Amino acid sequence: MAQDATAERVLAAVEQRREHVNAAIDEDLPMAEPERLYEATRYILEAGGKRLRPTAALLVGEALAEVDADDATDYRSFPALDGDEFDLMRAAVSVEVIQSFTLIHDDIMDEDDLRRGEPAVHRAYDTETAILAGDTLYAKAFELLSDTGADPANTVDAVNRLASACTRICEGQSLDVDFENRDDVTPEEYLEMVELKTAVLYGASAAIPAVLMGADDETVEALYQYGVDSGRAFQIQDDVLDLTVPSEKLGKQRGSDLVEDKETLITLHARQQGVDVDALVSAETPAMVSEAEVDDAVAVLEDAGSIAYAREMAEDLTERSKERLSVLPEGPARDLLADLADYLITRGY
Amino acid sequence: MAQDATAERVLAAVEQRREHVNAAIDEDLPMAEPERLYEATRYILEAGGKRLRPTAALLVGEALAEVDADDATDYRSFPALDGDEFDLMRAAVSVEVIQSFTLIHDDIMDEDDLRRGEPAVHRAYDTETAILAGDTLYAKAFELLSDTGADPANTVDAVNRLASACTRICEGQSLDVDFENRDDVTPEEYLEMVELKTAVLYGASAAIPAVLMGADDETVEALYQYGVDSGRAFQIQDDVLDLTVPSEKLGKQRGSDLVEDKETLITLHARQQGVDVDALVSAETPAMVSEAEVDDAVAVLEDAGSIAYAREMAEDLTERSKERLSVLPEGPARDLLADLADYLITRGY
Repeated sequence: MAQDATAERVLAAVEQRREHVNAAIDEDLPMAEPERLYEATRYILEAGGKRLRPTAALLVGEALAEVDADDATDYRSFPALDGDEFDLMRAAVSVEVIQSFTLIHDDIMDEDDLRRGEPAVHRAYDTETAILAGDTLYAKAFELLSDTGADPANTVDAVNRLASACTRICEGQSLDVDFENRDDVTPEEYLEMVELKTAVLYGASAAIPAVLMGADDETVEALYQYGVDSGRAFQIQDDVLDLTVPSEKLGKQRGSDLVEDKETLITLHARQQGVDVDALVSAETPAMVSEAEVDDAVAVLEDAGSIAYAREMAEDLTERSKERLSVLPEGPARDLLADLADYLITRGY
Repeated sequence: MAQDATAERVLAAVEQRREHVNAAIDEDLPMAEPERLYEATRYILEAGGKRLRPTAALLVGEALAEVDADDATDYRSFPALDGDEFDLMRAAVSVEVIQSFTLIHDDIMDEDDLRRGEPAVHRAYDTETAILAGDTLYAKAFELLSDTGADPANTVDAVNRLASACTRICEGQSLDVDFENRDDVTPEEYLEMVELKTAVLYGASAAIPAVLMGADDETVEALYQYGVDSGRAFQIQDDVLDLTVPSEKLGKQRGSDLVEDKETLITLHARQQGVDVDALVSAETPAMVSEAEVDDAVAVLEDAGSIAYAREMAEDLTERSKERLSVLPEGPARDLLADLADYLITRGY
């Protein structure tokens, strides 16, 4: 299947770069005193994660520099467009560090106990340490991004973009928290929340390397939109997969969002179509719901056109995101960025 | 009294600049959506505060540019040392914004209900909103500092210094939290905590304007040390004042730190001298303690030399901080920076 081949290429590309990224995280975020604080900052970074954002950042750099990466690629002395070298890897790490900070603080706010199958930082440590670990990573990201050796004017632009992305992420998380207390959220509002909370950082991951390398505004803007659109698609598809991927493959009960009354683009669309979403599932916990009950709920949502609505939106966004890549020189890195966008909505978890 | 004259000059200088600073805060942190989030970010900035850090930042700029400030001084188009103009005020605001973010998060961690006499943000709103309001201000500070129009290489340096200061602040707060669970903290460890948690941001407030203006490394380093040393003196003197200023003037019960078992440089020194600090006061809340009981405790601490130890250290640090100012051109702004250092340890609250 073409889908599987895409996933295989993406995972191989991610795998090839992940060791570099993990080594760079060790180097750029060394342990320091107070030990407990720094352990907490490393805790989530070491709990895994695919490193999709840093991979996207590295691929953008490779595409612009027309470098065909192999294991010996020196991301620490990477050529900008004017030939001067800078630390592309450090910029990639800074984005991953921001991602980690937001996960730590989000888990406190959402009272989530688990993250990537492990206790969340505020459970493994405590809330005070989790707040501080997030705040420390926040500072480290700006220390790193302001220390890549890239052209100063480009660095100032990159810092401003990362800071602006952080502001948007906070706005998105704030909307997400507010939505829990509202029963009149529209699909449009939901999409705006998703863009702010998640997609903007994908956008920054793709745009910042281009900024640092001295790419023109059109290229930077196209890469930003590539990231934003594929990030939005990713998040929307997440809601689709929760209903359509078998529980074994999903790694959790299919339909969990419905059982837990989590509003998604699908339920918001269904409500607009007059579906009584709150009556779809009567089970109160994912452990109590039957596959048959989920099947019935999915059938109702399919009849309302809500699942197709979300799936088509994710596909349209992915197509649009891939078109943006035409600003990049042709080559393996550009192809992998396109594959990455596809992978984000086809991954079976 | 010379002390009162100093305070008068400082307060007049602060007053003269505060309106500019408050107007700039309004302009640079405009209200936006989500409204509740942005209200929370403004809440503590509007609750007052003397604006000592932005005042110090503006005074450093004035001293270096040899400008004699009056109400018409345009801090938004301020001359750097090469004559190019940049937004000094925005840099000053960025430091105040970082200060506000740390207060909001500290109050959550310390479970403090009041800040500047008003409910803390996490009480006036809720913990989620307070975490996010802090995170938003954090981002805004870097958006602002990367957008002053100063020379790009200097801006990169300034951003890196602010980020590094934020890392240190987190380390200091982490030590502070850890110390509450330890009974073997040394005065040296306490002093390190104070430097990280509080003084480093004073240092950044004084150094960053010099960096942005293109001052040489020696000047920048001296100004940083001016800020750090006067900030340390300020914090140490705080502990002295809690025991020595009459309750009416202090605005809270004298000796509150002792009653609340708050470890200070004074109590840590006294412990080293063999004083049984825990037995000094038996009252369990500041409302229950008598002035006589505080007097007796103060007498014991005086006999141990602990109050003199702290007071002398604050005075020495202040003298040292003022000596650092010799890197600046002579003039009214330099004199006011010296007055400010004196004021920090003589203010009667």
